[in-house]
Amino acid sequence: MSVGAEVRLDLGRAERVGVGEAILCAPKSVAHLVHILDEGAAKGASLLLTRLSPAQFDALPARQRERIDYEPLSQTGYSGVVAAPAGKARVAIVAAGTSDAAVAREAARTLRFHGESAVEITDVGVAGLWRLLERIDEIRQLPVVIAVAGMEGALPTVLAGMVKSVVIGVPTSVGYGVATGGKAALYAMLSSCAPGVLVVNIDNGYGAACAALRALRLPHG
Amino acid sequence: MSVGAEVRLDLGRAERVGVGEAILCAPKSVAHLVHILDEGAAKGASLLLTRLSPAQFDALPARQRERIDYEPLSQTGYSGVVAAPAGKARVAIVAAGTSDAAVAREAARTLRFHGESAVEITDVGVAGLWRLLERIDEIRQLPVVIAVAGMEGALPTVLAGMVKSVVIGVPTSVGYGVATGGKAALYAMLSSCAPGVLVVNIDNGYGAACAALRALRLPHG
Amino acid sequence: MSVGAEVRLDLGRAERVGVGEAILCAPKSVAHLVHILDEGAAKGASLLLTRLSPAQFDALPARQRERIDYEPLSQTGYSGVVAAPAGKARVAIVAAGTSDAAVAREAARTLRFHGESAVEITDVGVAGLWRLLERIDEIRQLPVVIAVAGMEGALPTVLAGMVKSVVIGVPTSVGYGVATGGKAALYAMLSSCAPGVLVVNIDNGYGAACAALRALRLPHG
Amino acid sequence: MSVGAEVRLDLGRAERVGVGEAILCAPKSVAHLVHILDEGAAKGASLLLTRLSPAQFDALPARQRERIDYEPLSQTGYSGVVAAPAGKARVAIVAAGTSDAAVAREAARTLRFHGESAVEITDVGVAGLWRLLERIDEIRQLPVVIAVAGMEGALPTVLAGMVKSVVIGVPTSVGYGVATGGKAALYAMLSSCAPGVLVVNIDNGYGAACAALRALRLPHG
Amino acid sequence: MSVGAEVRLDLGRAERVGVGEAILCAPKSVAHLVHILDEGAAKGASLLLTRLSPAQFDALPARQRERIDYEPLSQTGYSGVVAAPAGKARVAIVAAGTSDAAVAREAARTLRFHGESAVEITDVGVAGLWRLLERIDEIRQLPVVIAVAGMEGALPTVLAGMVKSVVIGVPTSVGYGVATGGKAALYAMLSSCAPGVLVVNIDNGYGAACAALRALRLPHG
Amino acid sequence: MSVGAEVRLDLGRAERVGVGEAILCAPKSVAHLVHILDEGAAKGASLLLTRLSPAQFDALPARQRERIDYEPLSQTGYSGVVAAPAGKARVAIVAAGTSDAAVAREAARTLRFHGESAVEITDVGVAGLWRLLERIDEIRQLPVVIAVAGMEGALPTVLAGMVKSVVIGVPTSVGYGVATGGKAALYAMLSSCAPGVLVVNIDNGYGAACAALRALRLPHG
Amino acid sequence: MSVGAEVRLDLGRAERVGVGEAILCAPKSVAHLVHILDEGAAKGASLLLTRLSPAQFDALPARQRERIDYEPLSQTGYSGVVAAPAGKARVAIVAAGTSDAAVAREAARTLRFHGESAVEITDVGVAGLWRLLERIDEIRQLPVVIAVAGMEGALPTVLAGMVKSVVIGVPTSVGYGVATGGKAALYAMLSSCAPGVLVVNIDNGYGAACAALRALRLPHG
Amino acid sequence: MSVGAEVRLDLGRAERVGVGEAILCAPKSVAHLVHILDEGAAKGASLLLTRLSPAQFDALPARQRERIDYEPLSQTGYSGVVAAPAGKARVAIVAAGTSDAAVAREAARTLRFHGESAVEITDVGVAGLWRLLERIDEIRQLPVVIAVAGMEGALPTVLAGMVKSVVIGVPTSVGYGVATGGKAALYAMLSSCAPGVLVVNIDNGYGAACAALRALRLPHG
Repeated sequence: MSVGAEVRLDLGRAERVGVGEAILCAPKSVAHLVHILDEGAAKGASLLLTRLSPAQFDALPARQRERIDYEPLSQTGYSGVVAAPAGKARVAIVAAGTSDAAVAREAARTLRFHGESAVEITDVGVAGLWRLLERIDEIRQLPVVIAVAGMEGALPTVLAGMVKSVVIGVPTSVGYGVATGGKAALYAMLSSCAPGVLVVNIDNGYGAACAALRALRLPHG
Repeated sequence: MSVGAEVRLDLGRAERVGVGEAILCAPKSVAHLVHILDEGAAKGASLLLTRLSPAQFDALPARQRERIDYEPLSQTGYSGVVAAPAGKARVAIVAAGTSDAAVAREAARTLRFHGESAVEITDVGVAGLWRLLERIDEIRQLPVVIAVAGMEGALPTVLAGMVKSVVIGVPTSVGYGVATGGKAALYAMLSSCAPGVLVVNIDNGYGAACAALRALRLPHG
Repeated sequence: MSVGAEVRLDLGRAERVGVGEAILCAPKSVAHLVHILDEGAAKGASLLLTRLSPAQFDALPARQRERIDYEPLSQTGYSGVVAAPAGKARVAIVAAGTSDAAVAREAARTLRFHGESAVEITDVGVAGLWRLLERIDEIRQLPVVIAVAGMEGALPTVLAGMVKSVVIGVPTSVGYGVATGGKAALYAMLSSCAPGVLVVNIDNGYGAACAALRALRLPHG
Repeated sequence: MSVGAEVRLDLGRAERVGVGEAILCAPKSVAHLVHILDEGAAKGASLLLTRLSPAQFDALPARQRERIDYEPLSQTGYSGVVAAPAGKARVAIVAAGTSDAAVAREAARTLRFHGESAVEITDVGVAGLWRLLERIDEIRQLPVVIAVAGMEGALPTVLAGMVKSVVIGVPTSVGYGVATGGKAALYAMLSSCAPGVLVVNIDNGYGAACAALRALRLPHG
Repeated sequence: MSVGAEVRLDLGRAERVGVGEAILCAPKSVAHLVHILDEGAAKGASLLLTRLSPAQFDALPARQRERIDYEPLSQTGYSGVVAAPAGKARVAIVAAGTSDAAVAREAARTLRFHGESAVEITDVGVAGLWRLLERIDEIRQLPVVIAVAGMEGALPTVLAGMVKSVVIGVPTSVGYGVATGGKAALYAMLSSCAPGVLVVNIDNGYGAACAALRALRLPHG
Repeated sequence: MSVGAEVRLDLGRAERVGVGEAILCAPKSVAHLVHILDEGAAKGASLLLTRLSPAQFDALPARQRERIDYEPLSQTGYSGVVAAPAGKARVAIVAAGTSDAAVAREAARTLRFHGESAVEITDVGVAGLWRLLERIDEIRQLPVVIAVAGMEGALPTVLAGMVKSVVIGVPTSVGYGVATGGKAALYAMLSSCAPGVLVVNIDNGYGAACAALRALRLPHG
Repeated sequence: MSVGAEVRLDLGRAERVGVGEAILCAPKSVAHLVHILDEGAAKGASLLLTRLSPAQFDALPARQRERIDYEPLSQTGYSGVVAAPAGKARVAIVAAGTSDAAVAREAARTLRFHGESAVEITDVGVAGLWRLLERIDEIRQLPVVIAVAGMEGALPTVLAGMVKSVVIGVPTSVGYGVATGGKAALYAMLSSCAPGVLVVNIDNGYGAACAALRALRLPHG
Repeated sequence: MSVGAEVRLDLGRAERVGVGEAILCAPKSVAHLVHILDEGAAKGASLLLTRLSPAQFDALPARQRERIDYEPLSQTGYSGVVAAPAGKARVAIVAAGTSDAAVAREAARTLRFHGESAVEITDVGVAGLWRLLERIDEIRQLPVVIAVAGMEGALPTVLAGMVKSVVIGVPTSVGYGVATGGKAALYAMLSSCAPGVLVVNIDNGYGAACAALRALRLPHG
């Protein structure tokens, strides 16, 4: 059985749900990735590649690597043409610690792939509230806030108590002991005492960005 | 120490975060509730009461019961004046099974407390897809979809693959065996293979509605 | 075998570890409690009773009930003579929500049993930061802070980022969904990104107070 | 003690339970595997090797590698003679995503080892229902459906609501965050709201195929 | 909103998936049940009621109770006409202990509702193997074996090593300590070292029976 | 601080508890191991080394490697003089599968270090009962049975239903999916429906052997 | 189907495994218990009844209650003739706290049912070591020690470091917060750093006693 | 975006909370670390580096390595000037086993970074009580005790029953089976039956030391 038989791109997804096709690369073999990228190129499709490790990227043939705009911190790549963001930023991506930056960047890159730019604010954990308070007026102006935090995961709660925006919490797997893997942060966000905190899976910067896109594209009238 | 010392209403919350003061009644004693309701009445505030059990409601003094619009399925009450919804429904509340109706109703009641009406659609679980497909065009018209499901919790995933709206999953604690307490549904929603599914805590219809309010009130331009 | 055979009071404990004998009443039968109280009375000992439910208290013989200073919110009782607190308060007991008040009170009552008074501050959850900021200068003056919180359990982290005092987090079992039973709050506290947050078992106001006593009685020179 | 002392093949198993001897290779040392393969060859037995990693396979002596029909995606091997499938396919193996293909292939290879062929259908996850609906009539014709899915694991539920066949769910360990290791998918399948979904262990394509063989060989009359 | 709005019977399910409509009663209010039963009666439908507690049954109006064939051990009821089983038993329902009998009976009642009879064999736990061995020849004759066990859940494994039939394990929540709730038994069944053991949710006798029906009705040719 | 400061051998342990000093090597650095071995040699002590990986063993200086009787399957070593077993075997070590042999061997090596020999019986899992039944009379003669099993962990239960001996279950971490890490087997053993099954930690062949030594050396009269 | 069909006593068990028939009453209906007791009486068998709640006991017919020696603390009963213990105590049952006494008593009652007497020592938790040290010489004389503890479960570890006897740990479900249900104590016992600690299920005083019987009846020579 | 954008040192922390800036290195890239160290050097700040692996340390440029006082057992480094401890030791760091030494050393290094010295006592696990009892008088003199233990985690409980000092338990991830990762030790410490045991996250020697600093610097009067 050929490799291709196991791969079917969903190029009509943007039409259906407003979000383009993305490829979660981590669990795929290089052979599968090569096949997918060739199929995408043949159809003139732009693809968002997530969790594409440097080792996987390096193993791709040169003809494909050259077509990909790869960003190693977030392990994301754009294959094909991606338009520049149209207007000013409408999303704040706020990260509690330096170590959460990779997940925050995945969200930023997903947004830009879809033509949205974002303001990235890092190192504003709740144990140093004054850093967050310095930036709160800026954050308040943006209709969607993606709050990225590992460890005790309190950032979305504190933010949701101070802004009217949509607040999307992204727990990260940063941490050790009971914080290992991110469940402590996830549970803290789900248990938030602030009204209306939304949550996505651990380390899922991509999903948070997709949800932001849905919110930003709400029909209004 | 008097009872009142432990209670402080947050009547400025609507101004700050766009959502009014709500009282989670389940863990509070009747004495606390009486105190809170009297304070709200004295200040002319409208309060949303959630998880107010029939036993708690019945134990309130008549003067307070009379002021409360109580709905037993959702165990919610409105204390004080609540305006009628202004426009047509902008939220679809879709529930997988009959047993999820209480949580769906909590979301609906929270929306109406804030002046939003919703379309409630029940018994459209993914094991009987055709029921869902019959209603999908109606759902697609609404900018926010709250998908309530216990058991295997697949409803938000299926919906998010078919609509462009904001999709908020609410896992419920309905179920037995590994589904007991709702973690199976919660994890399924967080693991969704559809892009952009947002999740709130188990049985948290209130939180889903608050998030919907944030999304509906996004500034646009 | 007589009931008494299974009970042995540890009346030398205060000498050994600086904390007096306390009786965890919940898992004990009324017969055991009666036996313990009689033995304590016979020896002229003062006993701290924790988790003494109203039903258990009511089932005690009148001669024992009369000797007990019972406080129903915290379900604690003092049997025997308890001296009035000597100086001004040295402990701040800060509770995130109204529903955490029972655990906070257990801590306060344990402190007072040992001659320490405390300042109790309630309803200062991190979703409403401004309430906490109003009280922070007062809290900063006290050498030990006991921070009681359920749900997302962020209060000790926020406090430990603002004060130099010893900070002891007490997670509570208040909450539903993933917060049920208090593990979400416990894990959040243990994962705190603020340096030096200490934690005790869920709902263990008694233990937090005992630890505060140890800290307050440190020899200094 | 010699290596052989710890190995005893069960060559009479097919007679007893209708399924041939299979060797789970992952936890075994190469020395054990060599011993087992030699014993199988000496007795003229055909053996199904599962979870035989490429590294293990490469470490076998050439005389054994040559006798093995090895398939790297599923990490399975046939040692000895395996007859061609007799009739047309009676099992549908349906996989939600590309990444589930390895487990699906393990099931297919186990079936073929026992003389059954299968139809493999991939990339029909429930977030893109229309892909599944395109193939549903084909699937309906087959008496057994093996549904392989990681992440939110909803595929068997959706299928069992549309076909009369035996439906066997195989959760996979594909996924991250709460989906890590496959428990989210497993619990979703066990909690299925569709009647009669059967489940095997995570990643257990082999077990699903063995169960399918039992079902296909039911005596009827 | 009237009660009826939340209920929609799926009377076409038998046509679609080969299993009739069943009502999981435990999480439903009596008002819902009354509505469902009246709707079923009006349409001349036969309904299988599962997890209908004696308290719920007693709360139904007499006109409905009279129409229901209620069995208290399994907490199941038949509403409407149920035909007598046509042929001899084709399913063995084997239960490890006396305490598993309720779940075994739920399976038996579900089968009979669909016209299949079963042989029920109880108290054949693996700690007393000789009891099981006395019955093994009888069990071997039947094409489907439902093995019900709590505690260490080893029964399906032992059976699947001795018969060629389809083996469906039903873990039960009987037990204490680590066996509480049935996860120990569930995990043991999923981890079975016997090839082809299938598993359903804890206490899900109904689901095991539905799966048995699917297997028995396989088209063959 | 020198390495030695962190190491203190307990050479009086045999006198106190009847079991000699053993060194759990896995978490120790090579420097620590070298120090321990030198100290042992200097004092003429015999040491049992457990979980000594081949890599650790190879990193020891030649002078120490030469003194050690190393067995790689169980990763155990004897440093110093170990007497030959005195009498005939009094312990049966029964392992469910080939993959459990390493843990079984650790138990056997621990026994021999203390002068006891054992009968090792492998590949007698409960899915192939007849293999176990062939050896049961032999097993019955021995006063202590150590039953080693991963996966569904049913072996100790089946054995304890057939013999009067002390039965010690050792769950192993062999397995995948829900069996990963050995908790499925552990819980099955703890939940055993056979009376008097004893359990030790996962993969703890050493502990099972120590317990066997305690049992064999019971004073009797 | 009559009640009796689901009950089969195992009156030959003592012959086979050295421990008599015991009935775990908690999950059984009163009808089942009545049937079992009548059958036992008819056959002249002595039965050990465990987890027989006062409510269940009171619901038995007078003719059966009169035959039963019921002990409410341990919720055990003897039905039929039970011989007096023959010799002096050979088992120490040591309980950490007053609240563990019920489980300790279950062990003691199980031993006495089989003709063994035990020394019960209570309130010797490791937080008050001196109480334990006062009794250690007495404990050391007995060949088997059953150590019962909830909370942090350290008692068996401390004991096993001081005696040569067989040490059987029984975790109890006493405790709150992370200790709820007994898993903290169970895991502590399994993780013991003392060599040869054996463990049974949470609250399983019966199982510990059965294991003690096996150990005491070891053939020696 | 440049690396530096994601890093913001908190050099005012000592002023605010009494503990200096520390950098958790494990989750950071070498580029981030280089940036942080350069920024610290430029500002003349002293930094405590924790969880700095040898591989990370070796990857730093020579100019930075030379400024760092690196200690490999604890994987800590001091960058910049660190003053010698002023007075005699006020903290006892007591470790249960040799394998816990790395965590104990992290605590000691954190204390010394802040000018406090400590007494380190190792290999005093509760299974060998006499070793602990030999040192108890020394320990009692020190106002703060940090008790480090993996496995069954009983050390803080035993200590807190013998001293009046502040007792801070640090569970470690040393162990296997149910002790893997340290939750068994964590839960045991949280469940302690000794009054006033405080706990920090698994392996968090740094946090325990920070808490000790808070306690030692309590204002007294």
